[in-house]
Amino acid sequence: MRALFLDRGRLTLRDDFEPPAPGPGEVRVQVLRAGICATDLALARGYMGFQGVPGHEFVGIALEGRLRGKRVVGEINAGCGTCADCTAGDPRHCRGRTVLGIAGRPGAFAEQLTLPEANLLPVPDAVTTDAATFTEPLAAALQIGTQVDLARCRRALVCGDGKLGLLCAAALARAGAAVTLCGRHPERAAFVPEVRHVQGWLDGDGAPPETFPLVVEATGDASVLARALAFVEPRGTLVLKTTTERPATLDAAAIVVHELTVLGSRCGRFEPALAELARGTIPVEELVAARYPLGDAERAFAHAATRGTLKVLLDIGGG
Amino acid sequence: MRALFLDRGRLTLRDDFEPPAPGPGEVRVQVLRAGICATDLALARGYMGFQGVPGHEFVGIALEGRLRGKRVVGEINAGCGTCADCTAGDPRHCRGRTVLGIAGRPGAFAEQLTLPEANLLPVPDAVTTDAATFTEPLAAALQIGTQVDLARCRRALVCGDGKLGLLCAAALARAGAAVTLCGRHPERAAFVPEVRHVQGWLDGDGAPPETFPLVVEATGDASVLARALAFVEPRGTLVLKTTTERPATLDAAAIVVHELTVLGSRCGRFEPALAELARGTIPVEELVAARYPLGDAERAFAHAATRGTLKVLLDIGGG
Repeated sequence: MRALFLDRGRLTLRDDFEPPAPGPGEVRVQVLRAGICATDLALARGYMGFQGVPGHEFVGIALEGRLRGKRVVGEINAGCGTCADCTAGDPRHCRGRTVLGIAGRPGAFAEQLTLPEANLLPVPDAVTTDAATFTEPLAAALQIGTQVDLARCRRALVCGDGKLGLLCAAALARAGAAVTLCGRHPERAAFVPEVRHVQGWLDGDGAPPETFPLVVEATGDASVLARALAFVEPRGTLVLKTTTERPATLDAAAIVVHELTVLGSRCGRFEPALAELARGTIPVEELVAARYPLGDAERAFAHAATRGTLKVLLDIGGG
Repeated sequence: MRALFLDRGRLTLRDDFEPPAPGPGEVRVQVLRAGICATDLALARGYMGFQGVPGHEFVGIALEGRLRGKRVVGEINAGCGTCADCTAGDPRHCRGRTVLGIAGRPGAFAEQLTLPEANLLPVPDAVTTDAATFTEPLAAALQIGTQVDLARCRRALVCGDGKLGLLCAAALARAGAAVTLCGRHPERAAFVPEVRHVQGWLDGDGAPPETFPLVVEATGDASVLARALAFVEPRGTLVLKTTTERPATLDAAAIVVHELTVLGSRCGRFEPALAELARGTIPVEELVAARYPLGDAERAFAHAATRGTLKVLLDIGGG
């Protein structure tokens, strides 16, 4: 089958990719649409020495099992099923896990992928295929609300007005927080009309113009991390949403003296994200910058890597 | 009056120090005993460009107010009394606060000090003056239990077997956790007989021999900070107890991928610490390495700064 292959930074389209046969409890999914995210771009730059088929934001049609013939999205972590984390219902932190398109499992930039059947969720009819490709990043944005007491943090600053920053701002605003979004693209403020958009706060190192009980770092820029801490009120929380390729320097003294909490926040549960998409209150389709067929994957990656580009989708199986 | 004066790294004993007159609500305290802590040593090396009388761990006799004539200890942060933090009962994070012997308020290495009367607490009769000098560091150690759900973290690693590390290990063990203490002084394991003492875990950068849901960093060594993260289980918590003079590098990707929580934890409330001291279950007096009169403060500082020294006390007013 056709698949995009990545070998330590080199992308090639292969027509003869042979995926491993589905294991016990696994089903094949025909991919309809897949999103290119920052992690994919990092892998394409050689991050983690990745070799294989990338891609983990997808919508497809289940080819087997109880969801056969239905549109599905899927949680990307597949646990070993037997360790303490897995039996406690948390395969996302299983040490023997594979991660779709990231670690040990061919990903979604291919005609088909394989996942444990238990990872798949049906896409509600009200959600378009384009919108459903945002399930994973929206789940990651909604995750903040499960880690932080938003009733105590009524004011929040989101650093970064890229895709993830916009989704975080929207998720926090929907949860009732007064959100300030700091980034380089004032035109994107329209995505979440109720947030205040500011520019330039993250440049330089002067005193911050304002501080917040909750700050979300969603720029993926290691140099912003240290700066983001300065915006957190004493006893406040900094949520780190993005991984950076180079190590980030944090001022441990500031964390101790102001008794701050720094929370790593990765992916989230898909059900609440699908429910939010079905309500249609977050206009995720406005984030789509372009669509390319799988055959144009190299151009799609180049487009996605262009500074200031929102979501680039790969149109793999129509639908 | 007699006081130890510190001017950007230079210590001098002055006989003619004139403390500011007590402000409204403030009372004078005659100092009996004071402890030299790592922060004092850092100030004496020039940290924060400190000028003034250092010292913040003390026991004294209140000279005025409702506790007049009684042995007292005192919370070291004095808020402005009018800002939002202060009116909410949290002067410890008031932006206009002074901090005894650290910021804007002459400290305890002097015959007398001044604090708001509200900051003072009587020392129970059952607690010796030596033991009561540990109120502040013990409060800092007990603070962990108010920030972390110890019922969920039954296993903990404490990094550092200095004074604060030993107190943290003791506090966590008393709270029912199975504690592993990592440090360079196996002979100190006797301080908390129920903890397991290990050596060498923090050196090098290989895979950690074990991971823990809760790791407490109490070495004050910036280079250990990054290493300490590796010992935290996925979704676990790293508590930072000590400030380091140079900025520490944290791997933000590890925090995000493993969804870790990094908690800054500074001082704690004095009441529970005094109650713990009155119970006498933590043998804090074993931590006293030496006592010097105020006139020998320079020797006392040199002793305290010698690697591997536990608590050095200044004997200021007898008692």
